[in-house]
Amino acid sequence: MNIALLGFGVVCSGVYDILKNMPEYNVTKILIRNPAKKTLDCMTLDFTDIENDKNIDLVVEAIGGLHPAREYILASLKAKKHVVTANKAVVAAYFEEFIAAAKENGVKFMVEATSGGGIPWIKNLQRVGRIDDVTNIHGIMNGTSNFILSAMTSEGKDFADVLKTAQELGYAEADPSADIDGDDVRNKCAISASIAFGCPVDVNGILQAGIRHISKADIDGVGKKGYNVKLFATAKRNGDSFDAVVEPVLLNKYSVEANVPKNYNITCLYGETIGEVKLYGQGAGGFPTGNAIVQDIIDVNKDNAFDINFDKKLNKTELISGKYYIRIPDGTAGWKEIIGDIIESEESTAAGTIVITKETTPAKVHKLFSINKEIFIARFA
Amino acid sequence: MNIALLGFGVVCSGVYDILKNMPEYNVTKILIRNPAKKTLDCMTLDFTDIENDKNIDLVVEAIGGLHPAREYILASLKAKKHVVTANKAVVAAYFEEFIAAAKENGVKFMVEATSGGGIPWIKNLQRVGRIDDVTNIHGIMNGTSNFILSAMTSEGKDFADVLKTAQELGYAEADPSADIDGDDVRNKCAISASIAFGCPVDVNGILQAGIRHISKADIDGVGKKGYNVKLFATAKRNGDSFDAVVEPVLLNKYSVEANVPKNYNITCLYGETIGEVKLYGQGAGGFPTGNAIVQDIIDVNKDNAFDINFDKKLNKTELISGKYYIRIPDGTAGWKEIIGDIIESEESTAAGTIVITKETTPAKVHKLFSINKEIFIARFA
Repeated sequence: MNIALLGFGVVCSGVYDILKNMPEYNVTKILIRNPAKKTLDCMTLDFTDIENDKNIDLVVEAIGGLHPAREYILASLKAKKHVVTANKAVVAAYFEEFIAAAKENGVKFMVEATSGGGIPWIKNLQRVGRIDDVTNIHGIMNGTSNFILSAMTSEGKDFADVLKTAQELGYAEADPSADIDGDDVRNKCAISASIAFGCPVDVNGILQAGIRHISKADIDGVGKKGYNVKLFATAKRNGDSFDAVVEPVLLNKYSVEANVPKNYNITCLYGETIGEVKLYGQGAGGFPTGNAIVQDIIDVNKDNAFDINFDKKLNKTELISGKYYIRIPDGTAGWKEIIGDIIESEESTAAGTIVITKETTPAKVHKLFSINKEIFIARFA
Repeated sequence: MNIALLGFGVVCSGVYDILKNMPEYNVTKILIRNPAKKTLDCMTLDFTDIENDKNIDLVVEAIGGLHPAREYILASLKAKKHVVTANKAVVAAYFEEFIAAAKENGVKFMVEATSGGGIPWIKNLQRVGRIDDVTNIHGIMNGTSNFILSAMTSEGKDFADVLKTAQELGYAEADPSADIDGDDVRNKCAISASIAFGCPVDVNGILQAGIRHISKADIDGVGKKGYNVKLFATAKRNGDSFDAVVEPVLLNKYSVEANVPKNYNITCLYGETIGEVKLYGQGAGGFPTGNAIVQDIIDVNKDNAFDINFDKKLNKTELISGKYYIRIPDGTAGWKEIIGDIIESEESTAAGTIVITKETTPAKVHKLFSINKEIFIARFA
């Protein structure tokens, strides 16, 4: 099988290194952007070299971002090449379009590497779906934010200090927004829910709260009550309805998810006959993500790939609910107008007002961000 | 696809109920032992009814035990019927013979349901093996013993009380030996290691220690030092060597494995490029195990099944080691002769002498059972 790589960063280098030991698979072209980095003969700066190469069977896309990734993916599918991608942003935005284009052209569109890195999450989600309706998924799907939360919990450090360490170790980008504000998780949540529920889920409809404004006081306070904080993607389905949200949650310290360490991920599903299944592993990195891509490549080559079918029409409604821990910084005006009717307890602390709510919905609580983006919320999961 | 079920207990009833909703699959014959339980027309008391039925494509074996399970499996394979089994004892004992017979007759022999119940363990182990050599596996592979250990830890109860509760809830058999002495885990360890390493592993060569003699004092004592006790299967490979052992281990309380609750299982692997992967789920029960069997059936039908290849020859050597916690009941003679040279600390308690050893091997420590089977051991993992 002849393969082209779009991009040659951490992920595609991982793919390249893994495929070197697999004689059935040849990387025959690599698209790069910077002419100074042309270190291999097969490297090209021109995508049409790949698009027009009839000998290329499969294109791996890992350039990231929406454009030109979308255009390259569509052009590759139209040129009857299978596409394997690690780019969660572009898949979350254009999943339905890609699946339709793949079907139209009789090729496969594969997304294992978009969600959960080395965890065989998408494949197992599809496999469980052969027997069960998957009605619930949740998980820790971002290594950077988990690294930060774990270190804050185990080492008692402040957010800013831990973020700095994460950046030095290469676990966090110079601009960490996508990781700590939940954008990355939201993309993975949309992709996972789309596959789990058989219906394209609009990523922009998923409410999102991150961990940027979590404080040592939050970690210590909930810790004393027996909880760890984790950033969760959660999605549920009930009949023709679904719901999805990305937000911090409070987990019993003695639970599996609460103890996912460092930059690891965990993804969880519930199906009627199989029950709960949880998958844990490296959520990022060249080799784990490269491994996920190569598994997709092998599945395409061996005709073992599952089709992604968006044959269901589901409506977004409020299926997710819970009590919330909310810390409101001093001087925030108007919060009582928003959550005044759901206060279970309220406490003034040095770090702000801490409210525990009655059972409520994400929509109700996320309204708080309209008055102050620095409010920290976490749902009791 | 026409399917025969051997047995109609918890597991085969689960299979039957799941397949009822899948029109592609028909259960056309069911072997039962007790004529009084013949509630369906398709039930027969005579295995040759199934063996000689040319319309049956696949046989599900879940009668348990070595005989006549072995004979039924071999006869089914020779009659060119695929075999899917949940019977860990017979697979652990005759795995190589079954694989050879399946190959000879051009049919599949499938074992997902033998190890980890509803956890898609075997499939993922094989799938990871397409890219990586799996060099380490471990896990909690028995729900009954995990239920007991979890309840002892979280509720502070004695072994005997918790075992009684487990029996009342149907999690433990009237004779719980296979679960609490490690026999069941040893079978699963042999099967998992055979697949992970591509070499039939002799189940009788695996050292085994159980949890029958664990006391509240053990749980409390190691708990104060920050550890939970779990019963682990562990196997390692290094080049042409492998090692495997079943024994209690001590795990940091704030680790994923230490927090596997109730009767759940977790199975873990390490591969070079994928890194650590852990899979969590229901290790037993009619629907989860039935689900695993039906996944095998679908894989056979869709030609998605992986072949099991025993093309490697590995030697058993000592690759597993660690420090041990050992509690020696008062009045035990001769233990100093066995472990006198590896004592790191020694303490006299009301419950016996507690020894922490230096780094050593299972073989060294398991020798203690030759002088007193009631000695409790657990390796620091």
